[in-house]
Amino acid sequence: MIMSRIEAPRDERTGNLLDRLLAGLPAEAVLTDPDVTASYAHDMASFCPAGSPAVVVLPRTVEQVQHVLRTATELRVPVVPQGARTGLSGGANATDGCIVLSLTKMDRILEINPVDRVAVVEPGVVNAALSRAVEEHGLYYPPDPSSWEMCTIGGNIGTASGGLCCVKYGVTAEYVLGLDVVLADGRLLTTGRRTAKGVAGYDLTRLFVGSEGSLGIVVRAVLALRPKPPRQLVLAAEFPSAAAACDAVCRIMAGGHVPSLLELMDRTTVKAVNDLAHMGLPETTEALLLAAFDTPDPAADLAAVGALCEAAGATQVVPAEDTAESELLLQARRLSLTALEAVKGTTMIDDVCVPRSRLGDMLDGVERIAAKYGLTIGVCAHAGDGNTHPTVCFDAQDPDESRRARESFDEIMALGLELGGTITGEHGVGVLKKEWLAREIGPVGVEMQRQIKQVFDPLGILNPGKLF
Amino acid sequence: MIMSRIEAPRDERTGNLLDRLLAGLPAEAVLTDPDVTASYAHDMASFCPAGSPAVVVLPRTVEQVQHVLRTATELRVPVVPQGARTGLSGGANATDGCIVLSLTKMDRILEINPVDRVAVVEPGVVNAALSRAVEEHGLYYPPDPSSWEMCTIGGNIGTASGGLCCVKYGVTAEYVLGLDVVLADGRLLTTGRRTAKGVAGYDLTRLFVGSEGSLGIVVRAVLALRPKPPRQLVLAAEFPSAAAACDAVCRIMAGGHVPSLLELMDRTTVKAVNDLAHMGLPETTEALLLAAFDTPDPAADLAAVGALCEAAGATQVVPAEDTAESELLLQARRLSLTALEAVKGTTMIDDVCVPRSRLGDMLDGVERIAAKYGLTIGVCAHAGDGNTHPTVCFDAQDPDESRRARESFDEIMALGLELGGTITGEHGVGVLKKEWLAREIGPVGVEMQRQIKQVFDPLGILNPGKLF
Repeated sequence: MIMSRIEAPRDERTGNLLDRLLAGLPAEAVLTDPDVTASYAHDMASFCPAGSPAVVVLPRTVEQVQHVLRTATELRVPVVPQGARTGLSGGANATDGCIVLSLTKMDRILEINPVDRVAVVEPGVVNAALSRAVEEHGLYYPPDPSSWEMCTIGGNIGTASGGLCCVKYGVTAEYVLGLDVVLADGRLLTTGRRTAKGVAGYDLTRLFVGSEGSLGIVVRAVLALRPKPPRQLVLAAEFPSAAAACDAVCRIMAGGHVPSLLELMDRTTVKAVNDLAHMGLPETTEALLLAAFDTPDPAADLAAVGALCEAAGATQVVPAEDTAESELLLQARRLSLTALEAVKGTTMIDDVCVPRSRLGDMLDGVERIAAKYGLTIGVCAHAGDGNTHPTVCFDAQDPDESRRARESFDEIMALGLELGGTITGEHGVGVLKKEWLAREIGPVGVEMQRQIKQVFDPLGILNPGKLF
Repeated sequence: MIMSRIEAPRDERTGNLLDRLLAGLPAEAVLTDPDVTASYAHDMASFCPAGSPAVVVLPRTVEQVQHVLRTATELRVPVVPQGARTGLSGGANATDGCIVLSLTKMDRILEINPVDRVAVVEPGVVNAALSRAVEEHGLYYPPDPSSWEMCTIGGNIGTASGGLCCVKYGVTAEYVLGLDVVLADGRLLTTGRRTAKGVAGYDLTRLFVGSEGSLGIVVRAVLALRPKPPRQLVLAAEFPSAAAACDAVCRIMAGGHVPSLLELMDRTTVKAVNDLAHMGLPETTEALLLAAFDTPDPAADLAAVGALCEAAGATQVVPAEDTAESELLLQARRLSLTALEAVKGTTMIDDVCVPRSRLGDMLDGVERIAAKYGLTIGVCAHAGDGNTHPTVCFDAQDPDESRRARESFDEIMALGLELGGTITGEHGVGVLKKEWLAREIGPVGVEMQRQIKQVFDPLGILNPGKLF
């Protein structure tokens, strides 16, 4: 690969860029083989354009990242930061001639402190690696996106990721106390704190969380941890309609319960999971609701929630016997998106979050949209958060079906906004939803956000073409 | 008061300002009697300069606030927003010739929704009024600053207030989902969401929280609520030294416990409370620790925590018999600042938050500083958060003692920074700590924060002289 860097055809501009980068980076941290750089072109979103990077860099230190940014500023070259590229909005997609800045080699856990309940990490640490490491100290890092075995903390911060745990434990944003950020011009900015509380000045930490690498490059994060809760116990409830399942969700939340998980899989999703993994989920159900508690007495909590499900019309309520059975149910839920992808080969995964009181209307609407466009749209949802993932299944080789997929995807976002929701609960805007961002936040919001972008990135070199 | 508006001596500039304001505000919403406006000059902080407002306005609608801001922009008049003026950093102090914009008349609770677990409120709603209103729906709004019977939600948002609950439930920032904000030029900006999750664009909501009215005027807030927890049960533990009490705090937190409250009062504070309210607290203790749990079985949790206190050297561990006794202990803690004020007539209340593993070092250092300056400094602390309130007691009539008070106050902040802490855990920067903010966040931080201020307030009319 190092040889191919030298041999690859290079115009003067790229040559200059490479020379400058190599002045502050070891040769093995600079990739230019087009076959290799092409593999860094995009994340896991469908329908998002991606360009060809001029170079991929893999720094291992803060100073190296600063060097990359100083070089980029000097030569006015766009920088696209990347974690594991498991994102679903094209937020990590390369632009032509850019520097792809992969943070995956900065993967050290620098500290885990059980008294302060914080971890200090580099951005390339894989979510599951951190989760396991803190568990050894009796601690818990809650955010658990479906891609947790692959995705990085830096990527999680960039997209403000969620997961199954959010109904009780919130999203990534709530666990980021402080950051070290390399700015567009290479300067290092430290934000936030490592204390439990702190209000010194504007909350820049939170500004970077979810900013999709468009304001600066996170090179170090102080994360809040919680004590490890008891293992959760899961209950599965079958419903004769999505509306009944949503009614159960409302009863559970209005009843003051705090489940550690409250997930919904519709009939399409249940069938897809069975087809893929033969898990024996009940295919007669119109909607399967999974609820879990990690409280001192989860069986009692599940009994109370089970009764509410029955009151809402559940035909079957089955608490898991033990944590092993619970884990199987969660596995089924975690397989949902992969299973739906197998239906037609390609999916577009929407991420609309509505007030949970409107969840029933949302699911109704998605069914209407699926019928209108003649498409299979499976819905799995973080129901307790009102966060739905209507997943359009289509054959990407069929242009007409692809067009209908894109149109139905957009119509689902319009429905979400109509119901008082947001176009993205946890996946971010990226390339996929940028026209929709403007619709959601309005012209004053767009103007203020653009001006903030301008403050941090006056030359517009940081992840251009994303968000706006 | 309306008459005095007309009769008060007014120069041309002020006259023009009043005429313009009255074009969009009812006469009773515009106060100019100097005796009256003087009462709006400052909050509850010591040592903070305050000017004389040209006028105090008390709008009741968003449109009226917009009118005030449009007028201020047009005439380049500073605007100082105020809630109940219970702040402790001078963040609400008037500047000469300013418009004081009191939001106290915008005090409607617009919605409480138990399914979505949100409340929608105007900024002038008093914290305790909201807490009681949501309680009727089985819900809980956690942030509980000591001034909760007086302070407003708008002020809480402006200063990102904390309270006793934070060790389990976090600060105000964590409960603000979305805002309506009137910008400096009178335009209305809506930020955030009313859904449980949402990542559409930069987190402007969080940028406004804790911005002390320097970026815009909050006129409506969507707040997250929690289900009402069981009543908490409190335990009191006496320690032979502050170090032993801090050791207990570390053991409790490292032990994975989640108390709903973990507070510390030093000997000086205990004695001051007894002197004021004859509460019969144990005066032989060097440090009194209060721990509480609002779990399903608080007695069991208190027993576990009591054992840890004993292991750390507690001489007495007394769990409250019932919630009434618990409430008495909390009342003692809540009286601390008032009681310390009675010692010498005046106090300066510091608000340094350190990593909780450094709490012992912090208390040690404060004792050293008190001895060095020959002053009484009582410490009460949200110990579970590492958030200390060293309270310097002094006679404001004594210039030398006043000077020593100010110097010791600053030395306490320097110590906090040295220990990896922050100059303000929950009271904000205001006028009092603005030189210290720069020390904490450094030159790059200051520059980025100033540029953000510039984006939202290009003319510098919003709460000038605060923060920077």
